[in-house]
Amino acid sequence: MTQLATGPTNGRNDRVVEVPRGLSGVVVTETTLGHVRGREGFYHYRQYSAIELATSRSLEDVWALMIDGELPDAAAGAAFAAEITPLRRVPDPLRPLLGPIARAGGGPLEGLRTALSLAGAVRGVRPLLDIDPATRRADALYACAITPTLLTALHRLRAGEEPVEPRDDLGYAANYLYMLTGREPDPAHARAIESYLISTIDHGFNASTFTARVIASTGADLTACLCGALGALSGPLHGGAPSRALDTLDAIGTPDRIDGWIRDRVLRGERIMGFGHPVYRTEDPRSRMLREIAESLGGDLVDFAVAVERRVLELLAELKPGRELHTNVEFYAGVVMELCGLPREMFTPTFASSRVIGWCANILEQSRDSKIIRPAARYVGPAPAQPVPPAI
Amino acid sequence: MTQLATGPTNGRNDRVVEVPRGLSGVVVTETTLGHVRGREGFYHYRQYSAIELATSRSLEDVWALMIDGELPDAAAGAAFAAEITPLRRVPDPLRPLLGPIARAGGGPLEGLRTALSLAGAVRGVRPLLDIDPATRRADALYACAITPTLLTALHRLRAGEEPVEPRDDLGYAANYLYMLTGREPDPAHARAIESYLISTIDHGFNASTFTARVIASTGADLTACLCGALGALSGPLHGGAPSRALDTLDAIGTPDRIDGWIRDRVLRGERIMGFGHPVYRTEDPRSRMLREIAESLGGDLVDFAVAVERRVLELLAELKPGRELHTNVEFYAGVVMELCGLPREMFTPTFASSRVIGWCANILEQSRDSKIIRPAARYVGPAPAQPVPPAI
Repeated sequence: MTQLATGPTNGRNDRVVEVPRGLSGVVVTETTLGHVRGREGFYHYRQYSAIELATSRSLEDVWALMIDGELPDAAAGAAFAAEITPLRRVPDPLRPLLGPIARAGGGPLEGLRTALSLAGAVRGVRPLLDIDPATRRADALYACAITPTLLTALHRLRAGEEPVEPRDDLGYAANYLYMLTGREPDPAHARAIESYLISTIDHGFNASTFTARVIASTGADLTACLCGALGALSGPLHGGAPSRALDTLDAIGTPDRIDGWIRDRVLRGERIMGFGHPVYRTEDPRSRMLREIAESLGGDLVDFAVAVERRVLELLAELKPGRELHTNVEFYAGVVMELCGLPREMFTPTFASSRVIGWCANILEQSRDSKIIRPAARYVGPAPAQPVPPAI
Repeated sequence: MTQLATGPTNGRNDRVVEVPRGLSGVVVTETTLGHVRGREGFYHYRQYSAIELATSRSLEDVWALMIDGELPDAAAGAAFAAEITPLRRVPDPLRPLLGPIARAGGGPLEGLRTALSLAGAVRGVRPLLDIDPATRRADALYACAITPTLLTALHRLRAGEEPVEPRDDLGYAANYLYMLTGREPDPAHARAIESYLISTIDHGFNASTFTARVIASTGADLTACLCGALGALSGPLHGGAPSRALDTLDAIGTPDRIDGWIRDRVLRGERIMGFGHPVYRTEDPRSRMLREIAESLGGDLVDFAVAVERRVLELLAELKPGRELHTNVEFYAGVVMELCGLPREMFTPTFASSRVIGWCANILEQSRDSKIIRPAARYVGPAPAQPVPPAI
């Protein structure tokens, strides 16, 4: 419901604007970065289909597209690679701190938040408001480049292993798998993860992207924005946890148990992880892409996942006719990451790794707008006229 | 300007709501925590005048009011003190990390962000969505209690000094000064800082409070919300930097130079730090309180500050007639903190210390609302129909 009302002053202006709860549908900004067309099952980065980018270009190309506005040609791509390659290395003052951070507790996202916070301090805190666009861009490339190195180093340190240095001859995705495992990955696995990472760089306006832009609107430095966005991403209501869909496959166990397991859940009204999305009314386009990637990799897990998906959709059509429910990005993302050897606790952090690129693009865009994002609240407590009782 | 329009789908619903830029005046939530009445020069915490609280109660009392909803009586106050006192101590796993964090670079706010991020990880990451109100409250008390200890420890470590352990027999403000300097403070200084800290616990809806609530709305853990809020607070457009007003006094130097210095600035149209506030149309009520506190402490700096304030207001009335401009909270906050021996780089962190209490109260309130805060953006780039050029 939407209404306008002139209510009590909020202190800044007399006009108080009533909007839907949670700001749903409220346009807070214009963007040239991309959009999700939920009814059409389509989303795009700038003027290109995100799925087409994910299946035909390198992650570095799409990274350049998001930050600089254009897909690079061969010369521009080489120049971009030369810029980002040295930024992948952990700065020396940060190195001895990664072990203690990894062992302090919390999960990989909290570790990344602490490490990025420190990495920003080590580089030097430069408020977005006080620096020119080229310096903002350099800070963004640094944060994006160092994130996969920090994530994989923290993961290995948590497991009692030494971090693996990035290799200059490997691209983003291959390097990610290499730094995680210490082994050069199967090219099919690297390409599968690359497509997945490209597809998760951005996805319309969501709570973490919005958080990054609110902080950017205060003129704070880029790291401040990213730490906030990471916090929002970690919220259970924010988004996906691809490992949950895989847990569902594990719980079902074998093809003969599919029907019983699904029927129980559906009849009890429980949510089935990996199905349904707040935005798409069609199949999630990322889900379709990831199913094709999973099928190209092949194996028992893929056959089982395809069988579960088919039966879930059939049973839902039978038990809840008229209710359209589709596989979401979590379902096959989990399958693809499992096939490529990623440990489950790294599924969401892997998603966060490339999402940092999308956040940075949003932060850079927001930093060109001088208006702080500062809404209002309505006081609904007791009338503030009461004398303070004396301290006893 | 406010308008409603039915525009292109944002993916979630067909209705797109147009609102003023920066969400100005847009009511995003209801609150019982407090409000700013800008035209009246009045703000309140729950049902009490914030200034009356700041001049008549202890910080711990107001902390309890914000978190638990009521001013404690003697028994409740003692119980609250018993709860928070042990929470002031830095957990053992965090201790060896504070030195490296202090020396990594960045300012005190970035150090606090990193240290709080780690302190949350050490305690254990508990998403707000998954825990009961009592556990949320316990996490909030921990974060509020440990913040002054972390801030002062990082400050001393940056200066090459050992941190000072909190003392159980000192209240929040006295302990803050004690941990900063290693000396038991003059009671008048402790009380002056206590009043200031109470007056900055909350101040209506602002960008950092909003950031904390957006992150809380995803169900993330309390530390995630605080790290985001700290980032927003560090933005130059967010709010105050009480040290800037003091820099103005330094730049003027002596009473005989006031007129020339102010005239130059006003005629060049430059902003004079310490004057003007986006919310208040009257004198900032915090400014009035802090001037009285400064005058009660007395000294040359106070006399000079009062003289500068009087001449600025007289000259503004002469040079820019009709333009009402008042002293803001920065002006006398800087003077009071200087008189109490706080180093200038700790002025804004001191403000942040008690603001953590206000953020926590807002986070706890937001966590009772199940709706995620997720607005929309309008795509205004080129039509997304273009084929992806092949990689070269």
